[in-house]
Amino acid sequence: MSRIVYVNGQWLAEGNASVSIFDRAVLFADAIYEVTCVIDRKLIDFSAHMERLKRSLAALNIHFNVSEQELLECHRQLSEKNNLTDGCIYLQISRGAVDRDFQLDNSVEPSLFMFTQRIRHDALMEIHPIKMLSIPEGRWLRRDIKTTQLLYASLAKSSVLEQGCDEAVFVENGFITEATSANFYMVSHDNTIITRPLDGTILPGITRARLLKLARENGVTIDERPFTLEEALSARELFISSATKFAMPVIALDGKLIGDGNMGKLTATLRQLYLENLITL
Amino acid sequence: MSRIVYVNGQWLAEGNASVSIFDRAVLFADAIYEVTCVIDRKLIDFSAHMERLKRSLAALNIHFNVSEQELLECHRQLSEKNNLTDGCIYLQISRGAVDRDFQLDNSVEPSLFMFTQRIRHDALMEIHPIKMLSIPEGRWLRRDIKTTQLLYASLAKSSVLEQGCDEAVFVENGFITEATSANFYMVSHDNTIITRPLDGTILPGITRARLLKLARENGVTIDERPFTLEEALSARELFISSATKFAMPVIALDGKLIGDGNMGKLTATLRQLYLENLITL
Repeated sequence: MSRIVYVNGQWLAEGNASVSIFDRAVLFADAIYEVTCVIDRKLIDFSAHMERLKRSLAALNIHFNVSEQELLECHRQLSEKNNLTDGCIYLQISRGAVDRDFQLDNSVEPSLFMFTQRIRHDALMEIHPIKMLSIPEGRWLRRDIKTTQLLYASLAKSSVLEQGCDEAVFVENGFITEATSANFYMVSHDNTIITRPLDGTILPGITRARLLKLARENGVTIDERPFTLEEALSARELFISSATKFAMPVIALDGKLIGDGNMGKLTATLRQLYLENLITL
Repeated sequence: MSRIVYVNGQWLAEGNASVSIFDRAVLFADAIYEVTCVIDRKLIDFSAHMERLKRSLAALNIHFNVSEQELLECHRQLSEKNNLTDGCIYLQISRGAVDRDFQLDNSVEPSLFMFTQRIRHDALMEIHPIKMLSIPEGRWLRRDIKTTQLLYASLAKSSVLEQGCDEAVFVENGFITEATSANFYMVSHDNTIITRPLDGTILPGITRARLLKLARENGVTIDERPFTLEEALSARELFISSATKFAMPVIALDGKLIGDGNMGKLTATLRQLYLENLITL
């Protein structure tokens, strides 16, 4: 461990990077975050991440007054200080440190920290077909905000890994919401991409928005509607998306092979479209 | 601010008390806590809090190897160093600090911190009749574990305070679960205490267990079953319980006066029974 991280205006060795025990991230998970992918030293779709960050801050009424330009500069310096060629940059903002009280106090200064996570270029770009298990949706009601209330997702992910699979997908009232930290899609037998709409029950993924835009531009039909676990199990293709997984094929769900067990054609096309049309800074 | 707090074996001025930004409490809300009441320098029902702490640790598979006796000694020293006569002691244990990953890593050392919160004796003992609003249940599915996934509760509490009320009570499928940080009870017109059973959807309150035991011993009928918001609105009495509120009357719910708008007789009796039979250390 030898990273340089950023905490509230300071560049610190990661071993010295800390926040107050009274930080509301520590006591209430009262914090939001973003993870921006870095490929070949370039930040991917940075502005879209900043837009979502602003939405998250507004949703929780956290008054954070650092500009997008300053945050971009922080991302650049952090990358340079850590010689980050490929991986991601994690950014977290909490409401700040104040004596413990369920009542929100917006008079305190929000706290900000950022750190890098290196991923080898070939590992980042590798297509790793995913085996999934379904898990009852048990997170909270404001999954549209990118908060640090991630305990259930973390428990779910660990549980499926122990069972020899790669990812969990959450099911609520029979309908799929999303994966632990990725959006979820099925491709029907008439080659339509079906994915849950942004109805407040899932995270508005940055990669999701990009993939759907590229798909539409390339004549693929998109049907944004809730769909069931049963539908997913009989889909032609399944895939997930996230900032560091791009579009990644799901080849098994609850033990059932999807398609012929290989990456589907539309998934492959979308992944290629995404990587050929990266929005970089 | 001049408290002495305890963090991972060290006694620190509160301004210097911190945890790593990689602590899983900070990144995933992967932490559990207890709040023990202190009255006249005595710890209330400490062993029961430690029992629940062990249950929470087991539920999250956090391997914490400090004995109850050592934690008791920490509580005592913390009280002395802060000259705490009345208030509470907050204790939090997280899985520990490790590079960010949804997959649980139990090879790291859990982190522990504790701090005091002073409450004036008369404020602690004061009967403050509570006005409540109902809010859709939007927390996570493992509310039986006392974790720091408290963001929704904190947002709810702040929302009702802005609306001139004191507390929120959560409603799920028409049935009441609990308040933001307290269990919830109704007294029916035949003087039965009705409260939701420990069915995994609410926190097993330490004060709840104590109150129900005392009520039973004094011939009060208890009916542990789910009950609706409508039932609550037409109850003879409503009250909540927590480690620092004991039994506290609810005199209004969603704008409707409960009973005659004063503390009910059974609530008063239970509160008195509780305070006369404190389990202290």
